[in-house]
Amino acid sequence: MEFASDNTSGAAPEVLAALVAVNEGYAPSYGIDDHMARVTALVREAFEAPAASVHLVATGTAANALSAALLCPQWGAIYCHAEAHIEADECGAPEFFIGGGRTAPIAGDHGKITPGGLRARMALTPQGGVHHIQHGMLSLTNLTEAGTLYRPGEVASLAAVARGEGMKVHMDGSRLSNALAASGAAPADMTWRAGVDVLSLGATKNGCLGVEAVVIFDPAKAWEFELRRKRAGHLFSKHRFLAAQMAAYLEDGLWLRLATQANRMAARLAEGLADLPGGSLVHPCQGNIVFASFARGLHRRATEAGAHYYLWPFDQTLDGPDDAPLSARFVCSWSTTGADVDRLLDLLNQR
Amino acid sequence: MEFASDNTSGAAPEVLAALVAVNEGYAPSYGIDDHMARVTALVREAFEAPAASVHLVATGTAANALSAALLCPQWGAIYCHAEAHIEADECGAPEFFIGGGRTAPIAGDHGKITPGGLRARMALTPQGGVHHIQHGMLSLTNLTEAGTLYRPGEVASLAAVARGEGMKVHMDGSRLSNALAASGAAPADMTWRAGVDVLSLGATKNGCLGVEAVVIFDPAKAWEFELRRKRAGHLFSKHRFLAAQMAAYLEDGLWLRLATQANRMAARLAEGLADLPGGSLVHPCQGNIVFASFARGLHRRATEAGAHYYLWPFDQTLDGPDDAPLSARFVCSWSTTGADVDRLLDLLNQR
Amino acid sequence: MEFASDNTSGAAPEVLAALVAVNEGYAPSYGIDDHMARVTALVREAFEAPAASVHLVATGTAANALSAALLCPQWGAIYCHAEAHIEADECGAPEFFIGGGRTAPIAGDHGKITPGGLRARMALTPQGGVHHIQHGMLSLTNLTEAGTLYRPGEVASLAAVARGEGMKVHMDGSRLSNALAASGAAPADMTWRAGVDVLSLGATKNGCLGVEAVVIFDPAKAWEFELRRKRAGHLFSKHRFLAAQMAAYLEDGLWLRLATQANRMAARLAEGLADLPGGSLVHPCQGNIVFASFARGLHRRATEAGAHYYLWPFDQTLDGPDDAPLSARFVCSWSTTGADVDRLLDLLNQR
Amino acid sequence: MEFASDNTSGAAPEVLAALVAVNEGYAPSYGIDDHMARVTALVREAFEAPAASVHLVATGTAANALSAALLCPQWGAIYCHAEAHIEADECGAPEFFIGGGRTAPIAGDHGKITPGGLRARMALTPQGGVHHIQHGMLSLTNLTEAGTLYRPGEVASLAAVARGEGMKVHMDGSRLSNALAASGAAPADMTWRAGVDVLSLGATKNGCLGVEAVVIFDPAKAWEFELRRKRAGHLFSKHRFLAAQMAAYLEDGLWLRLATQANRMAARLAEGLADLPGGSLVHPCQGNIVFASFARGLHRRATEAGAHYYLWPFDQTLDGPDDAPLSARFVCSWSTTGADVDRLLDLLNQR
Repeated sequence: MEFASDNTSGAAPEVLAALVAVNEGYAPSYGIDDHMARVTALVREAFEAPAASVHLVATGTAANALSAALLCPQWGAIYCHAEAHIEADECGAPEFFIGGGRTAPIAGDHGKITPGGLRARMALTPQGGVHHIQHGMLSLTNLTEAGTLYRPGEVASLAAVARGEGMKVHMDGSRLSNALAASGAAPADMTWRAGVDVLSLGATKNGCLGVEAVVIFDPAKAWEFELRRKRAGHLFSKHRFLAAQMAAYLEDGLWLRLATQANRMAARLAEGLADLPGGSLVHPCQGNIVFASFARGLHRRATEAGAHYYLWPFDQTLDGPDDAPLSARFVCSWSTTGADVDRLLDLLNQR
Repeated sequence: MEFASDNTSGAAPEVLAALVAVNEGYAPSYGIDDHMARVTALVREAFEAPAASVHLVATGTAANALSAALLCPQWGAIYCHAEAHIEADECGAPEFFIGGGRTAPIAGDHGKITPGGLRARMALTPQGGVHHIQHGMLSLTNLTEAGTLYRPGEVASLAAVARGEGMKVHMDGSRLSNALAASGAAPADMTWRAGVDVLSLGATKNGCLGVEAVVIFDPAKAWEFELRRKRAGHLFSKHRFLAAQMAAYLEDGLWLRLATQANRMAARLAEGLADLPGGSLVHPCQGNIVFASFARGLHRRATEAGAHYYLWPFDQTLDGPDDAPLSARFVCSWSTTGADVDRLLDLLNQR
Repeated sequence: MEFASDNTSGAAPEVLAALVAVNEGYAPSYGIDDHMARVTALVREAFEAPAASVHLVATGTAANALSAALLCPQWGAIYCHAEAHIEADECGAPEFFIGGGRTAPIAGDHGKITPGGLRARMALTPQGGVHHIQHGMLSLTNLTEAGTLYRPGEVASLAAVARGEGMKVHMDGSRLSNALAASGAAPADMTWRAGVDVLSLGATKNGCLGVEAVVIFDPAKAWEFELRRKRAGHLFSKHRFLAAQMAAYLEDGLWLRLATQANRMAARLAEGLADLPGGSLVHPCQGNIVFASFARGLHRRATEAGAHYYLWPFDQTLDGPDDAPLSARFVCSWSTTGADVDRLLDLLNQR
Repeated sequence: MEFASDNTSGAAPEVLAALVAVNEGYAPSYGIDDHMARVTALVREAFEAPAASVHLVATGTAANALSAALLCPQWGAIYCHAEAHIEADECGAPEFFIGGGRTAPIAGDHGKITPGGLRARMALTPQGGVHHIQHGMLSLTNLTEAGTLYRPGEVASLAAVARGEGMKVHMDGSRLSNALAASGAAPADMTWRAGVDVLSLGATKNGCLGVEAVVIFDPAKAWEFELRRKRAGHLFSKHRFLAAQMAAYLEDGLWLRLATQANRMAARLAEGLADLPGGSLVHPCQGNIVFASFARGLHRRATEAGAHYYLWPFDQTLDGPDDAPLSARFVCSWSTTGADVDRLLDLLNQR
């Protein structure tokens, strides 16, 4: 009963098999090889972006922070949701990579920024003089940290506000596959057609061992990115082992199939949790993450039976009266099965 | 006939098998797991350093630059050999991670610094005032970029000079296994007993896919390292995939066995190249790298037959008279076989 | 009728005379001279801090950002009021000097943080793991940007919260003289006895041309500060011209006399503005700054007559109905006279 | 007998008078005033550069490091002479402001780089890949640290090499006035017409209290400079006190008259020192600095009589046999008089 995170799961069989296969023999180092060429071709095809530049790193924080350094000036504010990974979970990586800058977090229901919220946040920092932090960039997380979804039109509205102020737009797509699988949107519609300049395309959480792609839709900055990646220690010497994962991930739509499985399991779990006595969903479940609230006694029972998930927010505790509701986060991954979900639900539904 | 680099080789079977095995089931993320505990235990045992703190990253540049940031103040000079990786091959990563600093390269025969050379270089930057760059740290590469070896006594002499000036000592052990296998020195004698504070312990080049350990012998700075690693995007979420590689690498002395094989192949190759008409070694071959010089016509023949290696220095060219000697670098890896070496030598020895 | 800022005023006659006097002859450069020794002695005496280390720079942003770099780790949050200069008016200088970090702004009435507000803000960033920004430092601005005052007991309460979390405490004393003159508190009580580690002691706004002192109460970090100042380009070669200003400023209590004059003028102005038809104070006037609200028609009249001051917040406009109230900021300086104040009040009180 | 440095001198009477005069009344802060407009006009006229953007800071290190940050990418090498101030005397300021980078010092006789020397240094760092530091910028110091001079044709030759490799060109003109006065070259010929992109125009050493101009010949980067200056704490609030100095300095050719006086005194001193028994010049005296060698006994006599100057290099000592020659540096300033020079020479010539 593992619902702590999608990064406690392993690698999908197809990905692992590709890794094993690519180990055969010698290969040029540092990404100058056929495996990487295949990755680039697959990304360009999936995103209908024949000129896009594609670069691999091994962690989501690297993908995000390098992207931020590419898009945000050293004196710029990074507009993002208050719960965004770059704001809350990267120990200041964006500021380190940018060499300054500063996140400008925006509150918003269900993990989402609205155009009005973005405009109001920007208005707190008047422009035109040198005294204030300058408008730097917009970063949108899709799937959001709340497990909700921006649809292409929403992305486009937000990007338009940012671009109107001269800002570039980044998408943290650590779980983009889940957002695409859930929305059915075309990758291009969700990204560059909606105004996204640079995408962190996640793969680690959804069936890889450790690989993320940075997709730069306007390749003018590709060489700068290469230099930034190298001097940040994020260029792999045995690069084929990144490329093999990503190629297998994108090949034949595996990424969307894996995400679809995770999303389905989350939907099944969300339905079950909402049906518990006193149960309710904290956020709409639109991807592979469920935020649900139910009686503390049930949480205690699940935990004692070995279920793994986080109370959310973290400052809650299992100690206390049985019937007071507690909220928690449950994450499904590509490897979550219906049996896993049912086992948890059965346990919670026992009388 | 692949001698371009040890990073064109793949992963050793034991390492790959461990990676596949560790994929089973779920595991806590970010290194809080039994796999990492096993790695720490293995490193501590191998280095007779029961308090050492061990941290994994995926690239050598990350290991070196994070170590430098830990040891060198932002206004410090990094004393290192002029050919050291941190000086010549990391696109300024140390300066980026340090947030300033500056390499202070030192010339020295066969890739090695001498105590006199170190003292002379330090004397160029008088201390005591705020105007000059301050003495920052010493970084020694062992095996050196020239394929030569520092023995424990040499490390100790150099470290003593550095420590006498208040500097900390780093060892770039990207190929430490080769140095240990060649010298027969105990890991402890080569590192902390000789005055090394922090070690970049390489594994990627010698049979892993992508993993390096940073070993901090005085663990007081371990938490600072953890924060630096995270904010540099070098903390893996599915950390078990790093740990499994490193554990397999260290288990039962695999790392030294692999290095011994590479070293033996290099010795065999060195002997053969030196015996060519007009052949000579540019540097003593003390590990897995051979620098040899022989007639341009033979280089042309080898290249045309598909042999991979680099002319060294790079600014030489195959074009020109047949008998003028050209120098070149040949790197053997754990996967180089006697047949590989013989095939190249046979080709070069054909009349 | 100049009330735009205290930095539109010139230098006090005593300060200018000292600058002229010190020009005579030659003097050692970079602060190794008797003038600087005199400054150190004066600061130590005024603050009853015989071991304090004193360093001069020319701007308040330099004093603040260098202090922040001394106290805050590169992965630390700078807790400060949302209107603090380091948050709102330094174009990201703290992040630049720290090499990362990030301000964590705290809302609070009348420009002040409360212990509860500080605790609540810190609670947003749980500690213990590497994922979040770490608690870095607390910076208090006194006099605040709202023209209000922290008394020694308030400083002590806030510092205690910060120190309890392992943080160091900085005071932005750009207008500390005004706070001291207003409260009658001893400089020591307002700073190190209350838990302040490093003080930016302003002088520019209050009668100097351009000089600020950084006072480090625990001198263990003094040498680090010297290096930071130098490499930030903030060490003056003809340093006597900074020292002469600061010595004259502190000599015989000039700094407090100048501040007292500014504070008195502000009190007189505040009383007059509050007595206008529809007039009210936005914040209590506790130093040399007045935030008052009154009818737009009166603002228009004052502006047309050449009065200089800022509508506050900035996004208000003089256009619109006469009787709608607008708020504004008026700053008095050491050179503001009773006649200046009365001229503005008379103008506003004309029927 | 003060020859330690030109920065031990005070301010010229005209400059001090301007500072006193500008103190009258109120003035807008942060450089938005008539005084700064006058400075810009004077610089543009002197350099025949009607579009140049002019920015004031208070120290030479600030001028140089901010200029470097404007011109050099974060992964770039700063090619400069091994004795250049940015290499030897700024405690790593360029690396701090650039956020990385690294000086690439070039040896050269008499403090000067040659095109061949520059080309040879660049060849040490092959380009085209991401592994090496990239070619960043060229910085020329004129007058050099050795007191010698680049003429416009020499600047043009060096700039052409740099520009041919895609680098921008900076001139550290901390003593540009001395170079102009000595060479008779037009400021435009010495700078932008010769390929200089950004100039640090010194004034502090030559009769000001503390002000330097950064002159950006192509103003496209002016706004970026403004932001960099602000966030580095180098924007003065009471900016008129910088502008008044610089305006007085440039007005009616004062800067060149002051430099001419310093140069003449140096020439007189150089002639006298070369004529001492065993006396010789270490470098040609082409500005206001004299490097001369003569018997240790004479140095001892001068020092005992209170003469101030530095043995050069620093690691020499007055202790030892009387007749062994020692080399030393003597710097004349705008305030050095013929009597000052004669007094030293008379002392040394006594039998």
